[in-house]
Amino acid sequence: MTLGKKVLYLSQTDVVNAGLKMAEIVAAVEQGFVELGNGRVEMPPKPGIHPGEGRDNFIHAMPASIPAMKSAGVKWVSGYPGNQTKGLPYISGLLILNDPQTGIPIAVMDCAWITAMRTGAASAISAKYLARPESSTIGILACGVQGHTNLEAINVLFPLKKVKAFDTNAAQASKLAEFGKNLDIEVEIVTDPKRAVTGSDIVVTSGPIFKVPHATIQPGWMDKGTFASLVDFDSYFSREALKEADKWTTDHIGQYTYYKEVGGYFRNCPEIDAELGELVTGKKKGRENREQKTFAANLGLAVDDMAVAPLIYQRAIEKKIGTWLPL
Amino acid sequence: MTLGKKVLYLSQTDVVNAGLKMAEIVAAVEQGFVELGNGRVEMPPKPGIHPGEGRDNFIHAMPASIPAMKSAGVKWVSGYPGNQTKGLPYISGLLILNDPQTGIPIAVMDCAWITAMRTGAASAISAKYLARPESSTIGILACGVQGHTNLEAINVLFPLKKVKAFDTNAAQASKLAEFGKNLDIEVEIVTDPKRAVTGSDIVVTSGPIFKVPHATIQPGWMDKGTFASLVDFDSYFSREALKEADKWTTDHIGQYTYYKEVGGYFRNCPEIDAELGELVTGKKKGRENREQKTFAANLGLAVDDMAVAPLIYQRAIEKKIGTWLPL
Repeated sequence: MTLGKKVLYLSQTDVVNAGLKMAEIVAAVEQGFVELGNGRVEMPPKPGIHPGEGRDNFIHAMPASIPAMKSAGVKWVSGYPGNQTKGLPYISGLLILNDPQTGIPIAVMDCAWITAMRTGAASAISAKYLARPESSTIGILACGVQGHTNLEAINVLFPLKKVKAFDTNAAQASKLAEFGKNLDIEVEIVTDPKRAVTGSDIVVTSGPIFKVPHATIQPGWMDKGTFASLVDFDSYFSREALKEADKWTTDHIGQYTYYKEVGGYFRNCPEIDAELGELVTGKKKGRENREQKTFAANLGLAVDDMAVAPLIYQRAIEKKIGTWLPL
Repeated sequence: MTLGKKVLYLSQTDVVNAGLKMAEIVAAVEQGFVELGNGRVEMPPKPGIHPGEGRDNFIHAMPASIPAMKSAGVKWVSGYPGNQTKGLPYISGLLILNDPQTGIPIAVMDCAWITAMRTGAASAISAKYLARPESSTIGILACGVQGHTNLEAINVLFPLKKVKAFDTNAAQASKLAEFGKNLDIEVEIVTDPKRAVTGSDIVVTSGPIFKVPHATIQPGWMDKGTFASLVDFDSYFSREALKEADKWTTDHIGQYTYYKEVGGYFRNCPEIDAELGELVTGKKKGRENREQKTFAANLGLAVDDMAVAPLIYQRAIEKKIGTWLPL
């Protein structure tokens, strides 16, 4: 019954060592959204299980098939908020990549790095269509993993000169400052969240996701012409501040509606103007003038992961990274 | 970002060498159905993708959490009918097992062997509640992998003395004959499908699944008091023969309804009397007299897989089988 086939295993270290650049990831994720926007991606709803005692524990299956990118597979990703107090990662999991022609698995790889990187990439792609092209000042509210990858990805597409970093944990803000310096971006650590928002061309909220928003950001903080990427869903903005939105977008209307109706997120948020696939394919307009306040509430999709995973697999093979295992 | 944790990889050979006995698998799957029947299993619908050119290609994500069995994970299983002409397996895939307390993956294992074995086990459990206890003659129609595992599993719970093996491919029937002899069961290879049905206490139809049933089995072939397990859904039975059913069961009503309404299977089949979880928990009656013709149309559920996978993981650790990999 053996297949006479082998599967490539890539640990998190292997995935990092494959050395995919953020610019490549941004390009791949955008290509994924072109396919999605043209109706050429198969991406069923992502079902989940919720084991253990933590009420917010989840493990989600995220399958997608992108024929044009010769990609088919699933990400099986868990989020356990209680892990961090045990010194374990909040996000963990594996991604299985299949040969689309035979269905047979060709790779199993850690998915935490991909999840972090592709989420930043999706923000950058939204910014490409929704932020002013000359945007150079960015405010990052919450400086964890997502704060880092969002900064890195947006820096690929925009001439960033300054980041204003806010975090309730000073050590986290310092880490982002170090990271920003390595990208040749001036970093100002701010202790007032308003200072991270006002005067920024782009704002990223990348804190934890809450069902009841902490709603820190108030009306009037965000300047005209600013773009905000809400990586933490609607947790950071007061409803009154969201009323200032001139354009409200997401990466997937179906998924957004599900989170809203079943999950209880995005209550009293603006009506959706466009989804990301419509922006990248030109089916709907992005920013229309220099004054608009534009928003992206991207949820993270299997298409993001499956656009990136084949590149990691190929690069790992080229660099002879990973462990070949019998099926 | 490394986790400092390891994950155990088990190839198909490793899984086989773990040496789990069919009797253990039958017991584990029944325990899974006790949990399911008592509403203590989380098992969302299984979404799928359909890559490649073959119109019946699928890759399904099958997640389940069974807290009482400390089991959480997903099976990612593909079925590519065209593979067999390439010398590749129809069914392939991997199963990821997670630590329910942290969500972190603890094992990745081949899923083809588990799929074959647990499907046989589910038939045996249905038979336990629906066949006459002294059933000793079994008819197997289509003698591939499922013919073998169904015979093996039913032999665990019933005093089988004789199997009547039918297959359009004589070599397949001979293989099953050899297998039966090893189980100390007399084997008669029959070339007329009616001979496999009439005079059998238990009938298993384990051929390929077709949307339009080939409907080989005619009314009057099945004796009173016989139990039939339809591993190939409703492919083998004519609608008229199904009208003889006194009890029609499945392993999951929700999944059955989905296959019927969305998939187009089970047209003009009898109304469902019970699902397997209701039978094993005594919430509904199984066989009620010696005359009834009883049926199980089990679909294969994630709970089957997740009931078995932790046992393989434990046995592999005890036997020091498999490859430990960094996460």
